[in-house]
Amino acid sequence: MCELLGMSANVPTDICFSFTGLVQRGGGTGPHKDGWGITFYEGKGCRTFKDPQPSVHSPVARLVQEYPIKSHSVVAHIRQANRGAVALENTHPFTRELWGRNWTYAHNGQLNGYRSLETGNFRPVGETDSEKAFCWLLHRLTQRYPRTPGNMPAVFRYIATLAEELRGKGVFNMLLSDGRYVMAYCSTHLHWITRRAPFGVATLLDRDVEIDFSSQTTPNDVVTVLDRDVEIDFSSQTTPNDVVTVIATQPLTGNESWQKIMPGEWRLFCLGERIV
Amino acid sequence: MCELLGMSANVPTDICFSFTGLVQRGGGTGPHKDGWGITFYEGKGCRTFKDPQPSVHSPVARLVQEYPIKSHSVVAHIRQANRGAVALENTHPFTRELWGRNWTYAHNGQLNGYRSLETGNFRPVGETDSEKAFCWLLHRLTQRYPRTPGNMPAVFRYIATLAEELRGKGVFNMLLSDGRYVMAYCSTHLHWITRRAPFGVATLLDRDVEIDFSSQTTPNDVVTVLDRDVEIDFSSQTTPNDVVTVIATQPLTGNESWQKIMPGEWRLFCLGERIV
Repeated sequence: MCELLGMSANVPTDICFSFTGLVQRGGGTGPHKDGWGITFYEGKGCRTFKDPQPSVHSPVARLVQEYPIKSHSVVAHIRQANRGAVALENTHPFTRELWGRNWTYAHNGQLNGYRSLETGNFRPVGETDSEKAFCWLLHRLTQRYPRTPGNMPAVFRYIATLAEELRGKGVFNMLLSDGRYVMAYCSTHLHWITRRAPFGVATLLDRDVEIDFSSQTTPNDVVTVLDRDVEIDFSSQTTPNDVVTVIATQPLTGNESWQKIMPGEWRLFCLGERIV
Repeated sequence: MCELLGMSANVPTDICFSFTGLVQRGGGTGPHKDGWGITFYEGKGCRTFKDPQPSVHSPVARLVQEYPIKSHSVVAHIRQANRGAVALENTHPFTRELWGRNWTYAHNGQLNGYRSLETGNFRPVGETDSEKAFCWLLHRLTQRYPRTPGNMPAVFRYIATLAEELRGKGVFNMLLSDGRYVMAYCSTHLHWITRRAPFGVATLLDRDVEIDFSSQTTPNDVVTVLDRDVEIDFSSQTTPNDVVTVIATQPLTGNESWQKIMPGEWRLFCLGERIV
């Protein structure tokens, strides 16, 4: 199984430390050694850093940990290959343009009977079930909405029915974003938490460290220290208005109440807030 | 005007040093301070590093200089904005999928009357004339070739006629690749050179340094030292079979004979060799 990590925030927020934790699971503390990727949205634009080598050894992953790219929406993935070779074209997330926006997708799970999925004008470049399913989703969206839709929550409700179809073919945990919205669809494991003022103190799951969220850290700094002995950068700042939601395959902190998404359920976030 | 840099090679080759030279022109020795990007193909997959900030100050650019990503095909661009704000979504190169391959495009120049170009299912995400022209090119290709074409040189001949149409609207220097082929279309300035065994000695344009290509450097190492005081990494190796073509807006070395592409002409390279 792969690990997913997503973020939605109302102010551009960096995810360096959260990503540091994830990276350690990519060949460090976890078995997910078959590549990794992370997509940051900055306005309508996005950029993806990816590497088919284990994240724990990747110079690109090191850059992403050290370079605070501030973003409203983030989708990240570390891979344990099942379908498709370990290769750049099979490395998540995948981004395609639809309705003049960049759509970014990452999948955790495995599908059967995916080869017969019709993908229309969206052709997979690699060999994964994941990319094929993404192309099928986009194709179905263009069939349902030949013109740019106005009611985006309705679009995501339709996407949830498509995700449900895919879940019928195996395991389908998904993160999907168009840069404004971040959708989390759960097939087996997916958790989320929204942090907002007043920021409290979080205890990490696997080491004896407490972070005081009301200090100068950003509300997602804490996620870090789970998997690795890192130093927290206190130079970043929260304001009382910051709202940041983090989505992850498994909870990343101990004494906070992460919400579990039940199999077949989904959540939609926009600017840090839960919409659905 | 922006600067273009491309590479086509018969063995996976890194372009760290060539890129180091280009980067210096991005806010260092040159005026191209409005972002930069570089796309590397590794197999069918590709990854793009880009930053809307000047390349000379970009931590991402520093990574690309230091991390030897070996590639058959590379497209790079540094930007001096004319149409479209300085923003990530307006930063070249642009990549879109067509016929199950990633197509990457970078443009140097400025177009008039581009807003009326029909782009079909390929919608621009940003506001540049460049991305609009790219979407139009792809749309025209899907009209001409509804199914995946087999004769790629014929496809590129058709692309050249489309590029000619765009040249009628202003200045249109272009690099375009599907990962196997690298096409260079010239509207004003574009040069190329193919390096192969026996590798000779090159004198740099703006300093008194000679590089012996027959030593252990790779054939494109030399490009580096043009704009900056860097050290050459002699740990990489050439073999007698290496063929590497470098394409650049302006020649990067002195005593080598760079070929100028005349306005309205184009070249097509595959695995380092000129095809057209």
